[in-house]
Order: sequence, then C-alpha cells, then structure tokens
Amino acid sequence: MSKKPIFTSPQEVEFAFYEALERGDLDTMMAVWSEDDEIVCVHPGGPRLTGYSLVREGWRHIFEGGTRLKVQLLALSTVHGPFAAVHSLVEQLGVVGEKQLAAPVVATNVYTRGAFGWRMIVHHASPVPPSSIGDAPHILH
Amino acid sequence: MSKKPIFTSPQEVEFAFYEALERGDLDTMMAVWSEDDEIVCVHPGGPRLTGYSLVREGWRHIFEGGTRLKVQLLALSTVHGPFAAVHSLVEQLGVVGEKQLAAPVVATNVYTRGAFGWRMIVHHASPVPPSSIGDAPHILH
Repeated sequence: MSKKPIFTSPQEVEFAFYEALERGDLDTMMAVWSEDDEIVCVHPGGPRLTGYSLVREGWRHIFEGGTRLKVQLLALSTVHGPFAAVHSLVEQLGVVGEKQLAAPVVATNVYTRGAFGWRMIVHHASPVPPSSIGDAPHILH
Repeated sequence: MSKKPIFTSPQEVEFAFYEALERGDLDTMMAVWSEDDEIVCVHPGGPRLTGYSLVREGWRHIFEGGTRLKVQLLALSTVHGPFAAVHSLVEQLGVVGEKQLAAPVVATNVYTRGAFGWRMIVHHASPVPPSSIGDAPHILH
C-alpha cells in the first residue's frame, strides 16, 4: 500500500476529492477514501458500490472514459462532530471545453476521523431536477 | 412542540422511520428527525429539502397522496461512532395491494446523538438500476 496523505479536516478531504475528480486522478481519489469494507459510493443513476475495491473500480471506469469534468459546488449544508462530518451539496458538473452545464447532482458526503486522520466513507450522488435548487447559490469550488 | 420519543440507538430511529413511512404517519415521521436547520431529505428523483419545515412539507405531500407503501430493506452497510451513525441500505418499495415491487432505491441515512437521544439528520434516497444490487440480499424489515 502506497503512502497516503493525512487529512486534518473534512474540508481538506472534500477539497482533495473534487480535485481528484476534476483531474481524473485515480490514486489521489483513492487516497481520499477510508479503506473500510463498509464504504459506499453511488454515482448518479448508478448502482451502490460498497468496499474499497468496488469503489476503486467505479472511479477507474469513470476516469478511463477520459472526459475531463469541472465541478462547481453550491448550497452546502454541514453537520460536524468530533469523529464524523456530513456534507450535503449540489454539484454542477460540466465537461471541460463545453459551455453547457449538466443537470445538477445532489451529493451526500460523509467523513470520519480515524487513526490516519479524516477520510471519506460515503459519497452518494444523484440527479436533482434543475429548477429545484431551493437554497441560495453559494459557490465553494 | 409536542413531546417526542427518546431513541436510544440509530436502529430504533431507523425502525420508527420506516414504520412511519409505511403508515403514512406524519407526526411519527417528524418525531424521528432532528430539529436542526441543517437536516437534509432527498426523495427519489426529487429536490434537496433542507431544514425541518421543508422536510416536513415533503413528507406531508407524499403522505397526502394516500398511497400506502410497504418497504423491504436489503443489503445494509453501517458505520457507527459514539455520536453519529451512517446506514446505507436498499429499499424495495411496493404499494400495498399490488404484487409488483417498484424499482429499488438506495438510501443513505445519517443519525446523530444529541441531548434528546438519537435522531435522523439525513435521508438521501435515489433510484438504482434493478439489476445492480451487488450485495447478498439481507432482509431487515
């Protein structure tokens, strides 16, 4: 197992997650995740992937497609505790080089703090109706 | 504000949540939720609802329809900490009186422990492809 960075806050993990997503960088992406068997990743419209290998396989498949994504994050809501943090946000995904944004996606990201700092344990993303983002836009990324 | 039950575990909250869902009982449903402004509820294909009033409004709208649902829960994965718990599960929703089950839904449920016991803070549900439930079925409800 290669050395992984130690993240000192949920925000740091989240930043690295979306950086890896935009770069299509599988190693950086997987460094963000806990190695727990119980981790869960749901891509928009996709199946539920559980455990490190399946989650990795899912990202590998997405990044292999070669489409470079850009992500704008809106309307964050967070609940933070000493060992866990839950972020709810809206991802405006777009393809690099194309002006039009794809339909918005709502994401629930869960982070926990363990011996090796903060890691992601859940990323659940699903499409939402474009007109339904009730919250005031609040761009984060 | 009416008196609400004190839940002593995330499982108790979850049981009450699905009971309320099957019964279409708005008061019982809302007793399950934290009154935090940051609570989030996403119904399958629906918008993101944040805060107690919007979440309540969403359930009221669903229950008003009068359709009685039955829910079978499959393939649970959980992460538990002292103050927070995350459950990932697949809901097989059906309508009472109809034999056919609706398409499965993946749900991320997050619970936190506060001064008044455990409460739900996130319910994020979205449809998944029917053929994609990779986990061994494990009926819970």
